[in-house]
Amino acid sequence: MSRVVNGSPQVSPSAREAVERAIAELGYVPNRAARALVTQRTDSVALVVSESEDRVFGQPVFAGVIRGISSMMAETPLQLWLAMAQSGAERDRVSAHLTNQHVDGVLLLSMHDDDPLPAILADRGLPVVFGGQPIHMLDEHNDAAPVNFVDVDNIGGAQLATDHLIGIGRRVVATIAGPQDMVAGVARLIGYRRAIEADPKIAAPIIAYGDFTEESGGAAMHTLLEAHPDLDAVFVASDPMALGAMRVLREHGRRVPEDVAIVGFDDSVLAGQTDPTLTSVHQPMEEMGRAMAQLLYDRIRGVASAEANVILGTYLVHRQSA
Amino acid sequence: MSRVVNGSPQVSPSAREAVERAIAELGYVPNRAARALVTQRTDSVALVVSESEDRVFGQPVFAGVIRGISSMMAETPLQLWLAMAQSGAERDRVSAHLTNQHVDGVLLLSMHDDDPLPAILADRGLPVVFGGQPIHMLDEHNDAAPVNFVDVDNIGGAQLATDHLIGIGRRVVATIAGPQDMVAGVARLIGYRRAIEADPKIAAPIIAYGDFTEESGGAAMHTLLEAHPDLDAVFVASDPMALGAMRVLREHGRRVPEDVAIVGFDDSVLAGQTDPTLTSVHQPMEEMGRAMAQLLYDRIRGVASAEANVILGTYLVHRQSA
Repeated sequence: MSRVVNGSPQVSPSAREAVERAIAELGYVPNRAARALVTQRTDSVALVVSESEDRVFGQPVFAGVIRGISSMMAETPLQLWLAMAQSGAERDRVSAHLTNQHVDGVLLLSMHDDDPLPAILADRGLPVVFGGQPIHMLDEHNDAAPVNFVDVDNIGGAQLATDHLIGIGRRVVATIAGPQDMVAGVARLIGYRRAIEADPKIAAPIIAYGDFTEESGGAAMHTLLEAHPDLDAVFVASDPMALGAMRVLREHGRRVPEDVAIVGFDDSVLAGQTDPTLTSVHQPMEEMGRAMAQLLYDRIRGVASAEANVILGTYLVHRQSA
Repeated sequence: MSRVVNGSPQVSPSAREAVERAIAELGYVPNRAARALVTQRTDSVALVVSESEDRVFGQPVFAGVIRGISSMMAETPLQLWLAMAQSGAERDRVSAHLTNQHVDGVLLLSMHDDDPLPAILADRGLPVVFGGQPIHMLDEHNDAAPVNFVDVDNIGGAQLATDHLIGIGRRVVATIAGPQDMVAGVARLIGYRRAIEADPKIAAPIIAYGDFTEESGGAAMHTLLEAHPDLDAVFVASDPMALGAMRVLREHGRRVPEDVAIVGFDDSVLAGQTDPTLTSVHQPMEEMGRAMAQLLYDRIRGVASAEANVILGTYLVHRQSA
């Protein structure tokens, strides 16, 4: 109908007449939502975070990314709307709102591998940018359609961390890995394995798993100490898990770094506040958020291709724990 | 147009025929946004937080309220969308999206008194619930239209805190107040004044101001010590400001609580981690968030009146600092 109201010439005279009569009879007020039906522009984008509020607000990593997204979006005409959707029911509900009548594009953060949302959004033809590379793309032989993503170099960072532990003379180097349905968990384990397997002097990989939280890091450290009491270093795939691991080492009378050297991953504010302070892999979270926002804006304007992606470098920040 | 598509009988035969012809010629797909134009239901609500991302993610108070809102909304059919809007330009932009074609209602958090958004939303007839009582409503003689709000008893909590300092024998009891364009800043200062002025043995009110941040609390403590070196207690209107104040007292060689007793406000996780631990007024932030969500949902369904509001109790949590 708006093509008539807007005076577009691509409407037959009879249709125009019919619509104009209907407009006069029914009343018609052009408005933003109605215009969006035709122009397909809403000037809104959604950021969907598949995590609990506790983790979104409790883990500095999320705060950094969201800060970056938000500050970059403020430089565009787009309004950013944040939704948290942890359970399946919450994801179903939010997906019903993610149509091109509601948003021009979607940013997805911390998607687990079983999340149906990416496929639903792809079907709707909405531009989508992933924060974190989809897991299947880590497989070089995958034949899935390309997607836009921004990630940090998790593999390279984990390799740097593990190489550092080997470099300072440690020989039984374990890891506390993250969840294997999240790309950061999988990629950091790949980096650890590459470093371990590249050096024949080092014991075979020793792996326990956590879910990136402090508690899970403590539990994983317990498991490692029972199975490998001779371990002298641990690469821990997140700073909160590293805090848990250091707590359990202290409870077992093991000194850090003298008995067991520890490297974390995040370089969060926590890393500078622990005793001893935590050597950790730095990942540029705010920059990642800004790059996600920029890439989505470029996709919406048609100046970036559906294959574009960004991987940001990571580096090791040396402190006392290794 | 949807009245025709939905088969409503309140359309004249000629209008129906005209519209049906136009539909056939132009193509028409009923969708959620189109339906929203007629049904005026979007099943979305917005939470607008007038703060920087740093404060939203850095201050536990916001995380608590947002967690409460989010968990309550998950029990309704409504999808929650969060927008942060600190600058005037950001508030203008978000206000363009807050129409009844986009949302069924709005939650406003941490509005400063000069914010034009509440008046704009009232003009649009959207249900709005304030987190924090609008400042002008603290004046019992105000004649403004009633609004829906949920707040904690800031006045009562500040009075409890100040009475406690007087009760343990302190006689020169200062306050570090919050910003006077925010209701929590104004109300907590009212509570302090009431307690001081009720007791003729106590020196007149001694007031310095901060903006609720750690740095501002430190600066205000400097000011107080210079003007009133004899002070023996301070009621500080937020926990982060209390941390700044304790830091400056330590730098000046004043012991807490022996030389200067301190009470904060928030009872945040910080309060249990400082040395000495911080006596502080507890405010139920998550409960406040849940009450905001419930009240908005009730307003949208028409089961709460435009005058309904909720004030939640506060109480003092005793630790080492006073």
